[in-house]
Amino acid sequence: MRDRLPALEGVAYLNAGTNGPMPEDALQAMEAELADQGRRPRIGMAAIERWIALRGRVRSAAASVVAAPPEEIALTSSTSQGIGLICAGLAWQDGDEVVTTTEEHPGLAGPVHELGVRFGVRVRSVDAGDVADAIGPATRLVAISHVLWTTGRVMPLPEIAAAAHAVGALLLVDGAQSAGNIAVDAAASGADCYAFSGQKWLLGPQGSGALWVSPRALDRVAPGTPWYLTYSEGQVGTYQQDACRLDAGTIDPVTLTGLAAAIEFVDGLPGGRPGWVERAAMNSERARARIEQVEGARVVDPGGPGSGLIAVELARGEPTDATAALAEQGVLVRYIPKTPYLRVSVGAWTDDEDIERFCAALAGFLAASG
Amino acid sequence: MRDRLPALEGVAYLNAGTNGPMPEDALQAMEAELADQGRRPRIGMAAIERWIALRGRVRSAAASVVAAPPEEIALTSSTSQGIGLICAGLAWQDGDEVVTTTEEHPGLAGPVHELGVRFGVRVRSVDAGDVADAIGPATRLVAISHVLWTTGRVMPLPEIAAAAHAVGALLLVDGAQSAGNIAVDAAASGADCYAFSGQKWLLGPQGSGALWVSPRALDRVAPGTPWYLTYSEGQVGTYQQDACRLDAGTIDPVTLTGLAAAIEFVDGLPGGRPGWVERAAMNSERARARIEQVEGARVVDPGGPGSGLIAVELARGEPTDATAALAEQGVLVRYIPKTPYLRVSVGAWTDDEDIERFCAALAGFLAASG
Repeated sequence: MRDRLPALEGVAYLNAGTNGPMPEDALQAMEAELADQGRRPRIGMAAIERWIALRGRVRSAAASVVAAPPEEIALTSSTSQGIGLICAGLAWQDGDEVVTTTEEHPGLAGPVHELGVRFGVRVRSVDAGDVADAIGPATRLVAISHVLWTTGRVMPLPEIAAAAHAVGALLLVDGAQSAGNIAVDAAASGADCYAFSGQKWLLGPQGSGALWVSPRALDRVAPGTPWYLTYSEGQVGTYQQDACRLDAGTIDPVTLTGLAAAIEFVDGLPGGRPGWVERAAMNSERARARIEQVEGARVVDPGGPGSGLIAVELARGEPTDATAALAEQGVLVRYIPKTPYLRVSVGAWTDDEDIERFCAALAGFLAASG
Repeated sequence: MRDRLPALEGVAYLNAGTNGPMPEDALQAMEAELADQGRRPRIGMAAIERWIALRGRVRSAAASVVAAPPEEIALTSSTSQGIGLICAGLAWQDGDEVVTTTEEHPGLAGPVHELGVRFGVRVRSVDAGDVADAIGPATRLVAISHVLWTTGRVMPLPEIAAAAHAVGALLLVDGAQSAGNIAVDAAASGADCYAFSGQKWLLGPQGSGALWVSPRALDRVAPGTPWYLTYSEGQVGTYQQDACRLDAGTIDPVTLTGLAAAIEFVDGLPGGRPGWVERAAMNSERARARIEQVEGARVVDPGGPGSGLIAVELARGEPTDATAALAEQGVLVRYIPKTPYLRVSVGAWTDDEDIERFCAALAGFLAASG
């Protein structure tokens, strides 16, 4: 399977938390779509029907990742955009409250912050362990990650959802670091809206993503940036019945093809997506144990062993310097701003040699920082 | 030049108003970018810097189309999205009024309609000739096309802008059918915001577009779906200084490359973009005269000869049937819902044979509908 992920060649690719390695199958499908887009007329009824069918194919693929029916999926260009559309689409009143954590990515922290600036919404940012307790009668929205981008901590969504729903609030989940990394069942998690990315753990192109919206929440969300496909047959004023009314706008068919093909690639492997996620979890567990053996490195694991996203705290040296030093040796990880962590992304494709290269390079950096 | 637009081969490509013919140069640039995205690690500082530089290149290319500096351009995935971001980003109060025409595309009519539904904004939809007169003291926004998608009428923007500005309203222009079709100087037109598409007259990929925002309007528009690049160095709460703060979100680098390369292709031809637009106008004038010679066809030209977008009213038969009948003969035009028009898009690439094929096929259809 590694042979079909060409970006792995020659490097220890340990940053799917930013962008994952794309499957050769997806690249070839994108090339074919590009040729079709460019070298044949992309106009006329047949072209439009083909385009709509492609959107349906991506919707089904994205839906399968979060165990939802395609009717509950809107297509977006990113997790941030999905989150932004929910924040922009809800009806806000002065004094409404949003509960979030202090460890959210700008793609969630940004939209939530703007609610305060624009609509007088009170934003309560609390420690990741205190979310359920912070929910109160004025809470209208709880907006948190499933897997925190900082430490990889997996948030207890069902417990938080119960607290949110008890006060009539919606739970909006940032799934950028969970979808494709761990098993996700959006409805069973208790979430009302679940936004996720195509280009990270799902191995798709940049500019792809999806937003799951529970049928019970759909009518509470107005389309933030409506367009032709928001409406039934383009008739302004008549929404499409399903979550596709929240589709964020046009996306290059080449990009759409890439996301569908990347998801289908994993689904088509022996064991399918469940096997993929299981293998990722095993790889992650082994990597955590091995990294702990490096003197001066500590795996940060609040809430117990989590996902393939592993934060490593260094006893010496700056994570920014470590990232640069490791990159020179072909070991690709990242640091997380305002934290003391290196972040390592381990997926189903990660092998022991990747982890050995990381550990050796990290040990070298720590020794040089002594 | 026609040789470098492969989608023209074998057909009369007369619907750039939906999607234009992409240049071979843009397709090859996209293929190279796709290979780079997929077959090399798209992570690490160098990859991010390269991505930001690419966004800058597209911004400059898009800016040149509307005679603006790149600092005044936000990148979007479509005209609709640009319009949606402006509508979602302004501060609305009950009783505010928007003036628009009865002939707008759902990409403008939709966002404007939702303002009425959500914020109690009064929407005044008037005949295209009555816009300036409809502007009154409660008007906060005038939202109209530069070139109407229905008839190709070119709207008198400076006159309308003057009326809008006299009451403190902003002028938001839908440039989907103007940018790349006719010469556009966004600032000189009097517009405050000018949204346009990449995939139509600019010959770029679907899912590309841009939004020009005048510096005087920028601070009145909150980012509708904020994300990492909304903020200076990702610091939530600190907007980027320029219009890039309104960038709509991630766009596939392959798509971005395609838009930049398509714009640069035209700029690099003898005569550059001014020559391109001049040639399009000449072709359009000749086509109008020729189509008028077809018995039973009338060129609809309210406001005098306009752009390369030509509406043709048929004395007999349904435009839907005509579109289908012409498509069978490789003549690619479209009908406009709820109007009696066929719409023909004539660009710099259109030759006399295209128009002869159209006229012959149309004459045949009209004869059969006798």
